[in-house]
Amino acid sequence: MPTPTLKDLERAPNGERLDAARVVSALRWNEAGLIPAIAQDAESREVLMLAWMNEAALHETLRTGRACYWSRSRQALWRKGETSGHAQQVREVRVDCDGDTILLLVEQTGPACHTGRRHCFYLRLDERIAEVTLDVDVDPDSVYG
Amino acid sequence: MPTPTLKDLERAPNGERLDAARVVSALRWNEAGLIPAIAQDAESREVLMLAWMNEAALHETLRTGRACYWSRSRQALWRKGETSGHAQQVREVRVDCDGDTILLLVEQTGPACHTGRRHCFYLRLDERIAEVTLDVDVDPDSVYG
Repeated sequence: MPTPTLKDLERAPNGERLDAARVVSALRWNEAGLIPAIAQDAESREVLMLAWMNEAALHETLRTGRACYWSRSRQALWRKGETSGHAQQVREVRVDCDGDTILLLVEQTGPACHTGRRHCFYLRLDERIAEVTLDVDVDPDSVYG
Repeated sequence: MPTPTLKDLERAPNGERLDAARVVSALRWNEAGLIPAIAQDAESREVLMLAWMNEAALHETLRTGRACYWSRSRQALWRKGETSGHAQQVREVRVDCDGDTILLLVEQTGPACHTGRRHCFYLRLDERIAEVTLDVDVDPDSVYG
């Protein structure tokens, strides 16, 4: 369910504004203090990846205009592109109606996916078959060593 | 980290196929048995919403071609549009590189968002201001009573 602040905005018209801090404090972080963040290519509109943010990662993203996530495997801030160079310039940050998902519209440098593909959603699934739908653009060994 | 099945596909070429059951069993459900599912409009490419699926919801979606999620608030299968009529015909189901996110490409009937807006990501956020960026298309009272 949306928090009171977000509930108040449900009927608000286009253009209604409030303090960013009120919205950030209305976000619904999970029990690990994280929220899913979708990265979408601002030009091609492809969904590139989904990663997770804690509050520090969100604030850094808003402050720097570069996507910063929380790496659950490394348990550390993950400044996308820090190792690979495949950074994301953030054009816009959006929050969903019930405050439990973030959407980033980004300019992606190089492939977004650690496999060297343009995006992470290269596996198509139906009832019987799963099929790879994208070739690798960049050899990951050349990126991550 | 990707499971062995998905790890094997990281370098696979476009067109490589395997049994859907192998990929489904390689998915990484969270401790509640859920996986985030992004719904993207197949035509406009707008990201419409993020919801959650358990394995039953995924199988139903694959079988019926209609988006079915798991409602965490109601703790029940949520056949999108069952109450509102705002259903999602699923054109394609995709899985990401490490098997912990689903992407649905859908044909959305009516607004995707419970507020009556086209999509759920109508709140733009920067360091100082949050701003509503979409008007309500359909009065939610006329949909949900």
